[in-house]
Amino acid sequence: MRAEVITIGDELLIGQVVDTNSAWIAERLNEIGIELYQITSVHDDAAHIKDALDEAFSRVNIVLTTGGLGPTKDDITKHVLCAYFDTHLIEDPHVRAHIYDLYKERPDVLNRLTATQWEVPACATILENRVGSAPLMVFHKGDQILVSMPGVPYEMKIGMEEQILPYLQSQITNPQSPILHRTLQVTGVPESKLAIELEDFENAMPSDLHLAYLPKDGIIRLRLSSYGALTEEEMENWFEKLRTLVANYLIADTDDPLEVLVGKILTERHQTIATAESCTGGKLASLLNKHAGSSAFYWGSIISYDNSVKEHVLGVPAEMIKTHGVVSEEVVRRMAESVRETLNTDFSIATSGIAGPSGGSETKPVGTVWIAWATPKGTYAECFHLGKLREQVTDRACQKALVGLLRILKEE
Amino acid sequence: MRAEVITIGDELLIGQVVDTNSAWIAERLNEIGIELYQITSVHDDAAHIKDALDEAFSRVNIVLTTGGLGPTKDDITKHVLCAYFDTHLIEDPHVRAHIYDLYKERPDVLNRLTATQWEVPACATILENRVGSAPLMVFHKGDQILVSMPGVPYEMKIGMEEQILPYLQSQITNPQSPILHRTLQVTGVPESKLAIELEDFENAMPSDLHLAYLPKDGIIRLRLSSYGALTEEEMENWFEKLRTLVANYLIADTDDPLEVLVGKILTERHQTIATAESCTGGKLASLLNKHAGSSAFYWGSIISYDNSVKEHVLGVPAEMIKTHGVVSEEVVRRMAESVRETLNTDFSIATSGIAGPSGGSETKPVGTVWIAWATPKGTYAECFHLGKLREQVTDRACQKALVGLLRILKEE
Repeated sequence: MRAEVITIGDELLIGQVVDTNSAWIAERLNEIGIELYQITSVHDDAAHIKDALDEAFSRVNIVLTTGGLGPTKDDITKHVLCAYFDTHLIEDPHVRAHIYDLYKERPDVLNRLTATQWEVPACATILENRVGSAPLMVFHKGDQILVSMPGVPYEMKIGMEEQILPYLQSQITNPQSPILHRTLQVTGVPESKLAIELEDFENAMPSDLHLAYLPKDGIIRLRLSSYGALTEEEMENWFEKLRTLVANYLIADTDDPLEVLVGKILTERHQTIATAESCTGGKLASLLNKHAGSSAFYWGSIISYDNSVKEHVLGVPAEMIKTHGVVSEEVVRRMAESVRETLNTDFSIATSGIAGPSGGSETKPVGTVWIAWATPKGTYAECFHLGKLREQVTDRACQKALVGLLRILKEE
Repeated sequence: MRAEVITIGDELLIGQVVDTNSAWIAERLNEIGIELYQITSVHDDAAHIKDALDEAFSRVNIVLTTGGLGPTKDDITKHVLCAYFDTHLIEDPHVRAHIYDLYKERPDVLNRLTATQWEVPACATILENRVGSAPLMVFHKGDQILVSMPGVPYEMKIGMEEQILPYLQSQITNPQSPILHRTLQVTGVPESKLAIELEDFENAMPSDLHLAYLPKDGIIRLRLSSYGALTEEEMENWFEKLRTLVANYLIADTDDPLEVLVGKILTERHQTIATAESCTGGKLASLLNKHAGSSAFYWGSIISYDNSVKEHVLGVPAEMIKTHGVVSEEVVRRMAESVRETLNTDFSIATSGIAGPSGGSETKPVGTVWIAWATPKGTYAECFHLGKLREQVTDRACQKALVGLLRILKEE
């Protein structure tokens, strides 16, 4: 069973907004055995939306749209869908009651434009958008199902989880073969070298099994995918073979982000961590506390962007900065040890580097980053060269910092 | 003149990777007068890629693709394009020399798979990918132009900036009417109320002028767009009218992110800022130092995720935490004042809240966030209720923190 997503909005096509909805929807659909065949982003334009719907329904039977459901004039999706399904708008008392409840403390929102939000297409099945005013709408035409959702990510996500996914599952009469993805992560090997080493494995794979290489920031994610032909046990066997073949480079046998892998180990061991960040400027801290449950292992950070903070809060001697430079093994080691001591944690990570675009020199060009890890068994430090683009440098520095910590945690 | 983007890769359609390339490309194309009509994401599948190309070329004359150019078996774009343009692969000595140079210190990369990267379609114009092994390829067929680029974002971006955009501009024989977008940002007014207030303005707009409402995290971006019919002066006049109408809610008359607006004012005034973060966990720090030049105004941060850090590094008395709770006006004020003093800055922002999913109570449910701003003229604090989802709470807290600072900076 296949579906497509159509995201609607001029903002997507002028680069004002990145479409994060589609990837999220794709993952959820796969979980209930629906393959996402194509994603299409179109303008807030009636003819364009209609063409995209026609094309999508020529390929698949389920189409999900996001966007264009606001109360303002630029949002036209509801009217386009009325024309497409040859229906008209009627007032929905349930939606009206919900909107009154939603805005009961904000009378300025209950105006005549908001009132258009409880007008819904007569032929549509209406599902509640618990956190917003635009209702979720489902249309049926023969075998075909169209789902229309708001584009605001958290409204779409709550609507999908609570309403749309159960609804779609109830509509699937034949049980679907599972879509299976298994991912592992490796580092320290070029993609091409790895592919040569895996040639025999790839040649032996059944035709329904796919292996994908996803390199990013020095880590390669290797993904095995099967779209219904393999059982879970067969998949597990192939995955185990792959895992053995890449054992020397393996950092994780799941697709979990590095900070999740680190967090799981620290939580299990009741150990804690802090960071002292210069060039990464809090990005590493944000990663470590991004996920629920992080207060069990993440204690805090000192972001010492300016040298005065390195001196006065982290106690790095001015003399040391003067002699070795702020991007140096000496300084980054002291930062790591100091924050570990001050915040009284088991581990710490410190970063100091030149994120650019300015600040580089011949001996220390933009992209030079020193990272130190202070642990109960001692302090380690390493120098990296991470490219020329500011965001790339800081993203990669976080990756290197977490990969290093993961190695230390697995060895200790 | 219109173009489309086709992003190629199974990872996009199973939700493993978010397509950030298309939005970036859209913005760059608009700058040289090319409208992006549609974005399509397709699988690494020959028939699917071919169909998407046919459909795109039935609508526009310029198609840009990203992805599928790696040296591994799952990447097939180059071979599909060879078949599509009825050509064959030849060795390109320039690309070979470039790849040898790129990997001169990594002999393990120079293997037979990497060698396939210097095989290029005979009929294609080859442009250099300075930072990667997959060359940029341009195909011509009558009036139609196809550009194929790697999917790795920084390779694509450098290639677009340095090679593709100048190339496309050289191919545009008639000067294009400019595509004009002007955006302003407002806050403190519901979208529907604003739209009612702007009804007369919208009704008076010429048909080629579009007004879009983009609400997110309590801020509404209002965008005026014209696709070639208006002169810059006419656009400026309409924009000025709009600006006057929304003056009471205005926080910015550009589309700059809030941290950029704040950074510009602080840099101009030679003033500095620090943060003390609990629930935002470094996210606010990362925003403030995200952009080049931030070391002029951003000094550093203390991320006090655990209470011990609040006590021992920020000097918040344990007694105060015990009496008022860690999410309280008293604590957040003390955090702000303490970090401003310790890091010796002009301004500071402190956050303390319940990001969830756990930790909420009846009086302080998940989403409760206290924010304080310490300034040369005194300390201000405010309590917000920012939703139920962890990421939404912390994102919105950063927005509120920056909007508040912007207001203070404009008043002081």
